Amino acid sequence: MPQLIERRDLDFLLYEVLRIEALTRTPRFAMHDRASFDGVLDAAQRIAETQFLPHAARLDANEPQFENGRVQLIPEVKQALTALIDGGFLAASFPESDGGMQLPYTLTSAAMAWFTAANAGTTGYAFLTAAAANLLRVHGTPEQRIRYMQPMLEGRWFGTMCLSEPQAGSSLGDIRTRAIRQADGRYHLIGNKMWISGADQELSENIVHLVLARIDGAPAGTKGISLFIVPKYRVTGSGGIGARNGVHVAGLNHKMGYRGTVNAALNFGEGEAAIGELVGQANHGLACMFHMMNEARIGVGMGATALGYAGYRYSLDYARQRPQGRALSNRDPASRPVPIIEHADVRRMLLQQKAYVEGALALCLYCAHLVDELATGGGEEAQAQALQHLLEILTPIAKAWPSDYCLEANKLAIQVLGGYGYTRDYPVERLYRDNRLNPIHEGTNGIQALDLLGRKLLIAQGAAFRLLLQRIAATIAEADEHESLREFRDALKAALDVAADVSMQLAAIAQRGETERFLANAAVYLDMLGHIVIAWMWLRQAIVAQAAVATASEVDRPFYEGKLRACRYFYRYELPKTVAQAALLKRADDTCLTMPLDAF
Amino acid sequence: MPQLIERRDLDFLLYEVLRIEALTRTPRFAMHDRASFDGVLDAAQRIAETQFLPHAARLDANEPQFENGRVQLIPEVKQALTALIDGGFLAASFPESDGGMQLPYTLTSAAMAWFTAANAGTTGYAFLTAAAANLLRVHGTPEQRIRYMQPMLEGRWFGTMCLSEPQAGSSLGDIRTRAIRQADGRYHLIGNKMWISGADQELSENIVHLVLARIDGAPAGTKGISLFIVPKYRVTGSGGIGARNGVHVAGLNHKMGYRGTVNAALNFGEGEAAIGELVGQANHGLACMFHMMNEARIGVGMGATALGYAGYRYSLDYARQRPQGRALSNRDPASRPVPIIEHADVRRMLLQQKAYVEGALALCLYCAHLVDELATGGGEEAQAQALQHLLEILTPIAKAWPSDYCLEANKLAIQVLGGYGYTRDYPVERLYRDNRLNPIHEGTNGIQALDLLGRKLLIAQGAAFRLLLQRIAATIAEADEHESLREFRDALKAALDVAADVSMQLAAIAQRGETERFLANAAVYLDMLGHIVIAWMWLRQAIVAQAAVATASEVDRPFYEGKLRACRYFYRYELPKTVAQAALLKRADDTCLTMPLDAF
Repeated sequence: MPQLIERRDLDFLLYEVLRIEALTRTPRFAMHDRASFDGVLDAAQRIAETQFLPHAARLDANEPQFENGRVQLIPEVKQALTALIDGGFLAASFPESDGGMQLPYTLTSAAMAWFTAANAGTTGYAFLTAAAANLLRVHGTPEQRIRYMQPMLEGRWFGTMCLSEPQAGSSLGDIRTRAIRQADGRYHLIGNKMWISGADQELSENIVHLVLARIDGAPAGTKGISLFIVPKYRVTGSGGIGARNGVHVAGLNHKMGYRGTVNAALNFGEGEAAIGELVGQANHGLACMFHMMNEARIGVGMGATALGYAGYRYSLDYARQRPQGRALSNRDPASRPVPIIEHADVRRMLLQQKAYVEGALALCLYCAHLVDELATGGGEEAQAQALQHLLEILTPIAKAWPSDYCLEANKLAIQVLGGYGYTRDYPVERLYRDNRLNPIHEGTNGIQALDLLGRKLLIAQGAAFRLLLQRIAATIAEADEHESLREFRDALKAALDVAADVSMQLAAIAQRGETERFLANAAVYLDMLGHIVIAWMWLRQAIVAQAAVATASEVDRPFYEGKLRACRYFYRYELPKTVAQAALLKRADDTCLTMPLDAF
Repeated sequence: MPQLIERRDLDFLLYEVLRIEALTRTPRFAMHDRASFDGVLDAAQRIAETQFLPHAARLDANEPQFENGRVQLIPEVKQALTALIDGGFLAASFPESDGGMQLPYTLTSAAMAWFTAANAGTTGYAFLTAAAANLLRVHGTPEQRIRYMQPMLEGRWFGTMCLSEPQAGSSLGDIRTRAIRQADGRYHLIGNKMWISGADQELSENIVHLVLARIDGAPAGTKGISLFIVPKYRVTGSGGIGARNGVHVAGLNHKMGYRGTVNAALNFGEGEAAIGELVGQANHGLACMFHMMNEARIGVGMGATALGYAGYRYSLDYARQRPQGRALSNRDPASRPVPIIEHADVRRMLLQQKAYVEGALALCLYCAHLVDELATGGGEEAQAQALQHLLEILTPIAKAWPSDYCLEANKLAIQVLGGYGYTRDYPVERLYRDNRLNPIHEGTNGIQALDLLGRKLLIAQGAAFRLLLQRIAATIAEADEHESLREFRDALKAALDVAADVSMQLAAIAQRGETERFLANAAVYLDMLGHIVIAWMWLRQAIVAQAAVATASEVDRPFYEGKLRACRYFYRYELPKTVAQAALLKRADDTCLTMPLDAF
């Protein structure tokens, strides 16, 4: 079995590119060192390989069942999650004061990628619970944190996020779930929620649903939405499990992939009351939720990357072992077949995967590192503002690009395995099905594109975008030291200039108030800027690899050569695609915008 | 429910673009007219909608089971196939003298697309049987045709193609199945076959396996392969069902999609003898098989197109009905949501699908029409040679491009439906899973690329390629009549010049004997030439649409406008991608070719 995430690559990105050891020189992470970081990665790999991977296929083939009002899962799910919780991974990034390990988010993101790569379905429960707990950490009252967050961080209770409704997914302003204030200050919730991951299960003693709803009389749209805690079982005064609350599964969703993570429609307040309590201020629920959204979206990008990465590693392993055909110049049919990795087209499919998944991993970890820098370097306001801006503009890219291109990587992994890859005997088809979710949830990639172009480009008169340009320009300047990187440096500089020009043109359209035309090709814009950002990530890696390769050990040299070659692949096969996209964007093409509806 | 294949589009392509009515002026098709053609299309749609579609999801969820030595399928499969057979579709393109309808292949291809769009799994059995029967029609002895082909054309027996083995898929020269000649002139076959679609079932009275094997003592490689008929049940002297032959299922393959079509490993000659008879000449089996390969590969392209087309139609239907969000310039949250088709990004996803699937359909029907032209216009040798050349060079594109891009269309269809598209409650995820097979089987798309660049480009000193250029140039000249098509005409001309230049450069590398470098980017070459060919198909359609739109009826005008708009989409969003590809090909980039194996 291959390493699902190449540990050497994680070490490279964490320690050589991002140099996260520097974080241990800040008060927040002073209790850690390289050894403790390594220990976390070792443990994640071990638990993922021994507890998560073995039941991944069986869980996929035996999706959750809803019987007699209970959601049943195969027992290995609970065992694996117990191992994850016992390993401290649920609360890994939480402060020690909350019982967490106070680890950098960069490191825990890398560690969690192992679990997703091994078994995305089982891992889902941990992600959801950590996210719900984190929301309460920031927005909950001290009492809410003790009553709800603490049992989640201990892994006794799990959490969910209840946003969508059957009629309102991308458009959260249209949710209808009602919250009716009671005399005791609590609320009764009435309504239907859709697409709730972890909606019900028997894995945890209780489930903490974080629910968006409208308090009666609230304004229409997004400004009238509040956030509520609605537990599956009511919580007694002493924090124990009380009576069943009025939250019930209306029906499970049967998905193409990610089957191990229960997903259901939930009814609130049908029959019995669904009692909830307000989190944060009334009518500010969406802001609370979106405060968590950067990390949630980077998490989706990282999940997509992990699935793509695992597929790459499986297909690489297969390509090294599978004999088939001969060199094209070899005309002796009696000669021995060669491993398919020797065929140029197979190498292309592997190199393409490598360029996608390792580029995506570099971006997601870069963004996670910005979160850590914000958490540690928040002292100087200008610096914090800059980090925040950079994170804001990169987040839609970190969500969408990996979910688009690591899905593409999974498609290629199947292709490398040929007919075998199309069967459920090999994991690559499952990874492909799992990954198809990622362009959809946590804001579709179309929504990400609108966010990037319509909101993030224009933040503070383009300050975030200019900062991004500056950071990329700094990397280009750094590459000057290496003559062998000139090709990439020049190409990135040219692409960057074009992107800046295109962005200016689009901003001018926005300023003229032509909103529809401004945003008509937002998806193309995200794809273009995404490719440029990934090219940047590759140049960052190439600079480190180029500096290291000459003096590297025999064992290490091929690793660095691989990085340089994948960089070359990206610059020659991928980055040039942005030229045509820029031309389309620059003339603000209206082919799609003005397509008459009856002409479809 | 939407029309899975838009009938207006079929009529447009068949009658307005290809003008297949002209075929009825040839002796071969003189018994037909437009009315009989229409009747066939009507019948296909009706049977597909009433007999194939209703059990498609159930069949997918209840894949074939292998129990007590028998392969069990849900009963609807047999009912549907009986309706197809009773409708005459199995033998639709066969001569009347064989009991067929002697219909143009163009028309039956269009008709069969309905069945695949409705239910690819069930349709598979009919395709396999027709292909096996066709092979015997051409290569079988008169006796073999009576004994084996006739019961297949009557739908009493089904057929399979047994090519691959566990160790030999893409590299057929390495197959090991032995054929041992017996005193009576028949053969005993011994070996293992893999990926056999329709390998076993209880739908038909008998199964005619067409098996590639090596006669003991045959030369190594592809020149030592012979073709055999090996029936599941031996056939008595009078043509009746005899004793069980030694062909048995070793195990079913459990696929990601196309689940309704049984796929299995078969053992020949284990325990009891697997008696077979030779088809055609000894050691010429691969030639017999590949004689059928053009049609089989166009068939795969057409199947991929049908699946992509159905996804487009479902997602279009959904987008017209699903309310969500408002115009980007509308800031009133209390206003009514609009159908999502009104959002530019959704229109982009629909237009992209339309450009892909209708472009692919035009190409597959164009190729099918070449088959018909060959069958009717074979009198003049130069003309027949030209048609054959054109068919040869277009076939790998007709197989690969639709399977790549209509899979992409299916991915977009899911995205239009959002979370709903990811569930098995809607057909789009099934279509996506089904379609993932098409880039793999009948020669992977990597094999198609090697075939196109390494073989077809060089046919008769480039004669096929020059012919293709001439045909495209003729369309460009035709477009001169329409000023409004100038943009497309100019763009296609430019792309064509670049493609010709690139091809010359590559041919020069081949002539220098640098085979590996010549073929290193074959996949990119196919993608580039594929896009140019589809752009050509769009210009052909645009010329007809442009001529018709001004005088079209109120009802018809939007249809022609849609064609013109999809053409514009393809020229603006897709064709420009070929520029970067051409640059890569022109410098014969060796990034993948020279990637050190230890650097992965």
